[in-house]
Amino acid sequence: MIPAPYLLYLGHSTDAVGIKTSRGLAVFRRDACVGEFRYDDCPFTLDLPRMSMAEGAAAGARTLVLGIANSGGKMGDDLIADAVAALEVGMNVAAGLHQRLRDVPQLALLAEQRGLQLFDVRDPPADLVVGNGYARAGHRLLTVGTDCSVGKMYTTLALTTALRARGVAADFRATGQTGILIAGGGVPVDAVVADFISGAIEQLAPARNDDGWDLIEGQGSLFHPSFAGVSTGLLHGAQAEAIVMCHDPMRTDMRGIPGRALPGIEECLAMNLQVARLTSPAVRAVGVCLNTSAMTPEAARAQCDDTAAQLGLPCTDPMRFGVESVIDRLLA
Amino acid sequence: MIPAPYLLYLGHSTDAVGIKTSRGLAVFRRDACVGEFRYDDCPFTLDLPRMSMAEGAAAGARTLVLGIANSGGKMGDDLIADAVAALEVGMNVAAGLHQRLRDVPQLALLAEQRGLQLFDVRDPPADLVVGNGYARAGHRLLTVGTDCSVGKMYTTLALTTALRARGVAADFRATGQTGILIAGGGVPVDAVVADFISGAIEQLAPARNDDGWDLIEGQGSLFHPSFAGVSTGLLHGAQAEAIVMCHDPMRTDMRGIPGRALPGIEECLAMNLQVARLTSPAVRAVGVCLNTSAMTPEAARAQCDDTAAQLGLPCTDPMRFGVESVIDRLLA
Repeated sequence: MIPAPYLLYLGHSTDAVGIKTSRGLAVFRRDACVGEFRYDDCPFTLDLPRMSMAEGAAAGARTLVLGIANSGGKMGDDLIADAVAALEVGMNVAAGLHQRLRDVPQLALLAEQRGLQLFDVRDPPADLVVGNGYARAGHRLLTVGTDCSVGKMYTTLALTTALRARGVAADFRATGQTGILIAGGGVPVDAVVADFISGAIEQLAPARNDDGWDLIEGQGSLFHPSFAGVSTGLLHGAQAEAIVMCHDPMRTDMRGIPGRALPGIEECLAMNLQVARLTSPAVRAVGVCLNTSAMTPEAARAQCDDTAAQLGLPCTDPMRFGVESVIDRLLA
Repeated sequence: MIPAPYLLYLGHSTDAVGIKTSRGLAVFRRDACVGEFRYDDCPFTLDLPRMSMAEGAAAGARTLVLGIANSGGKMGDDLIADAVAALEVGMNVAAGLHQRLRDVPQLALLAEQRGLQLFDVRDPPADLVVGNGYARAGHRLLTVGTDCSVGKMYTTLALTTALRARGVAADFRATGQTGILIAGGGVPVDAVVADFISGAIEQLAPARNDDGWDLIEGQGSLFHPSFAGVSTGLLHGAQAEAIVMCHDPMRTDMRGIPGRALPGIEECLAMNLQVARLTSPAVRAVGVCLNTSAMTPEAARAQCDDTAAQLGLPCTDPMRFGVESVIDRLLA
């Protein structure tokens, strides 16, 4: 386990979606966060006290979380320099980029000298096996999306909390760096060797017989030209009884692909059900979750109602309106 | 480059599909093969002289190729012992399993002591980037399949040869261990980190402006619960103008998944075209290639004719009847 509490890194980030790991921890593990570290050119705040590295350490932070994501996952010199600064004031460092902290010789050496630890959250488990798609016991729900970073993790966490509130056994199964940091475990599915995508998910959410639910965090989109392979293997490995579609109505282009439009929700839902049927013939959609954070409450309400009417499914913004309507449909 | 000539390993293999790398080299690089190494319990031969390790080395073999594949790609003790024996008589060792030769300390040490090399063909390139799906110049064809190991590599090689015979510039782009050993280069797409599947193929077959063709070897199947993620990313990365469907009419179950039936060719073709359209909206199917090696010539001919009539596409067995009909359709 990664020693808490945390100092959350924003650095020079100017991309609201790129800071989603720091933001996710600030929202879902707020009690474990002492502050945020950012430069003057970063326009964002997590509404935590702004601290230097030394101030963070003095406030009790045991780990600096480099909670920023960038397509491709490489570390720049500025990020490495800040990780060095954290180690020098006595903090461990955690990150979820494709490039491993421990593969940066300067960091590996310094951590060893200071008796500190480097946590590479995106390290996949060592002993993965290929998936097989055979029917297994248990209830599983998977969140899917029209694009990357449209709220699949938030939705999955909200559904888990809501199921538990109804007395139903429910476990969040994390598949991305932020979810893994929040849950304290999981499989970074985009970092496994390609042959093992579905097998990794079969291992993450194995057969269960307690009538409870595994709620599996989705990744990417079947319509994203960079990552659809991951989304496909995730669908097959999840063998989900139910899927929930996530979408950001304000997104104009696919994440990282300027000029490429998002698919329609209906088209995307149909494709996800078609692909999912390979390992879960009776899969059904139980709801749509929108990220309406940039809309007025009235516009958000109208958008949810319109989408629900159009698709014949419950539609909500989990952060704004809760997920009870989706849970009702799920348990109906 | 891996020093030729080769001694081809069959070992104790009793799975005709599992020896496809050794068989592929025996067929397509026969001049580079001096013999085969097998135990008495192996029922297969490549019609090469049977040799011990010492006899292989004495006959001039410079590399033992562990040309066998198993789902998951782990090495057993018997395989390691045979690799040791090869090193001890002075041969390099090449393999394409997920488990790396160099990660077996005994092999790494022995190779270093003897001044010999270990070749892990399944090592992906170091500097992959994520795909983007933007339109790029050039003609590309991808082979797809109803299952793993149904003849995609053979078909791709046959199409490359046939195009060249017509004076068309054409290059085989290998994506699997056997193809890479035959071609001397390529990308082992099932071994790349999941986020980089489509990006790896964009790098393997970049824009070309000479009016020639890249013929990309497909992997897996959209209907294979273990590997469909790889096949999906491959389709998106290939951005193929044309696809050719490969199928083994004698296959009763999906490779490695006893009890799971293969999809129909028509259903599989439709799904491949649907997925491919994300990055290649005008993609078209130009033929079906069957592996009829277990059928009589009459039955094979009838099967091809029936399939062609049913789908309205040229259908052939590349090894038996050539691929001219497919090339005609491709260039029409």
